[in-house]
Amino acid sequence: MATWSKPSLIAAVIFLLVSLLSSASVANGGRSGGRRLVRSYDEPCKEMRLYLHDILYDYSNSTSNSTSAAATKPTALSAAVSNPGFFFGRMVVFNDPVTEGRALPPSLEETVVRAQGLYLYDGKVVFDAWFAFTVVFNSTAHQGTLNLMGADPNTEMRDISVVGGTGDFFMSRGVATLRTDAFEGFTYFRLQMDIKLYECYV
Amino acid sequence: MATWSKPSLIAAVIFLLVSLLSSASVANGGRSGGRRLVRSYDEPCKEMRLYLHDILYDYSNSTSNSTSAAATKPTALSAAVSNPGFFFGRMVVFNDPVTEGRALPPSLEETVVRAQGLYLYDGKVVFDAWFAFTVVFNSTAHQGTLNLMGADPNTEMRDISVVGGTGDFFMSRGVATLRTDAFEGFTYFRLQMDIKLYECYV
Amino acid sequence: MATWSKPSLIAAVIFLLVSLLSSASVANGGRSGGRRLVRSYDEPCKEMRLYLHDILYDYSNSTSNSTSAAATKPTALSAAVSNPGFFFGRMVVFNDPVTEGRALPPSLEETVVRAQGLYLYDGKVVFDAWFAFTVVFNSTAHQGTLNLMGADPNTEMRDISVVGGTGDFFMSRGVATLRTDAFEGFTYFRLQMDIKLYECYV
Repeated sequence: MATWSKPSLIAAVIFLLVSLLSSASVANGGRSGGRRLVRSYDEPCKEMRLYLHDILYDYSNSTSNSTSAAATKPTALSAAVSNPGFFFGRMVVFNDPVTEGRALPPSLEETVVRAQGLYLYDGKVVFDAWFAFTVVFNSTAHQGTLNLMGADPNTEMRDISVVGGTGDFFMSRGVATLRTDAFEGFTYFRLQMDIKLYECYV
Repeated sequence: MATWSKPSLIAAVIFLLVSLLSSASVANGGRSGGRRLVRSYDEPCKEMRLYLHDILYDYSNSTSNSTSAAATKPTALSAAVSNPGFFFGRMVVFNDPVTEGRALPPSLEETVVRAQGLYLYDGKVVFDAWFAFTVVFNSTAHQGTLNLMGADPNTEMRDISVVGGTGDFFMSRGVATLRTDAFEGFTYFRLQMDIKLYECYV
Repeated sequence: MATWSKPSLIAAVIFLLVSLLSSASVANGGRSGGRRLVRSYDEPCKEMRLYLHDILYDYSNSTSNSTSAAATKPTALSAAVSNPGFFFGRMVVFNDPVTEGRALPPSLEETVVRAQGLYLYDGKVVFDAWFAFTVVFNSTAHQGTLNLMGADPNTEMRDISVVGGTGDFFMSRGVATLRTDAFEGFTYFRLQMDIKLYECYV
């Protein structure tokens, strides 16, 4: 009858430990047909590049083209501190089309991926902003939402957090790297969002 | 002296691997008396059905009954685009009683579970909203908070994210399914919230 | 040739299971040079005490000293319900210096750690508030952000959630315990924030 030598057994146990602990992606199995958690710390388990188009209504715009509106009047501080200022304290509410390419979609209203939420301007003497919003997917590729939040300073690249998700993005977490891809004053900007999920439930 | 055959040993190792990896709920043990993480991807580790009652102050209401207030004036866009409109850009701040049953609680002020935060209206030609709020539990059953965030479109059921928690809900995450259970214009609505936590620390 | 007795083997397997499951901190290993998740439920994997200084512009302040501004006008409800009131419905946008000690920093503008976001007042007859903000670290010690959200009731200590992070705080989660360390009416407050992270990626 074959027996295992002590060194072989130790090697087997070490192999078992190493295989359990050292893989960068840990898949905690679910029941057949159930959800599995895929974690990966070095490479995203899901990655998307999307463009957000924000068209602020500023009275002269066409209402049908506008996708966002200043919800607050200029604050006393922003009026006192700067001219023309960086709108310290302004809150903008948006419902923006989100696309895979850079071009504006044919219909701003019927775009199947949208970003909904708010941003604030919070810089007194330089540009500074803050975001909290939901990307709503209602396309053939994806059904669900991702919830994001974070600071948006005046730097080339800035990271915000993906703090949760629903539907196809159930319980997702990650980071989104923002880059201003184009802008026209405070009336239009196109934001490149590189969404990288490091926790996916598939 | 009993020895293990190679096939038996392999079977034991496979059993060990399977038992470690294939259970849907993974409990990472803590020290005696310490916290344990319970994850479950297919069934919530904690589930609650709660009703949120939002009574908007609209000048004719009784102040003592009101639980929320429009914090912003109508935006130029909402005035230009629609009549009477969906209040694009309106932010409402609320501190709403939350109950286990559908009935309004006897005292709106002293309800021990409350939802505090904001919602935005962000639809131009259809109803659309967005939520960010905290459910504060101060009851005999629960002490702690859950933090939620997500889009609230005009559909029967919609999911938002539970992005964190404190106290009895320390580090919790999950999904809350919202359903409008009743409403009277923009003055009152009752929101059914099915809160499902998939990460619990017990 | 040495062979393992059945009891020894069972003991080894039990030891293996126990060592895998019962440690309070579970380190899921990454590739060499890659990120590792450190979870700890009983003690934070990272802890910081920070002070947030909020100086509200109230028309008589110096603009250069102000770090926050009321973004909304008094709501009809707050005017109707109370005198002088708890500002139900007021939203304040802030970009506050954050320090390790209690003293105000020499330059309010150039402090390398900042808190950016919003707070709401949501109490009708008592003080009640709600926070959503980002702590932005731009110091030699830390580069990155932490995103926080939660209710801020009128109690000595209150917990809010750390719902995500970026940079040095990549994917972090935890709890921040807030304590009002000092205040002067509604014009200045200093908030002690004990930030405790229970999920760190190092």
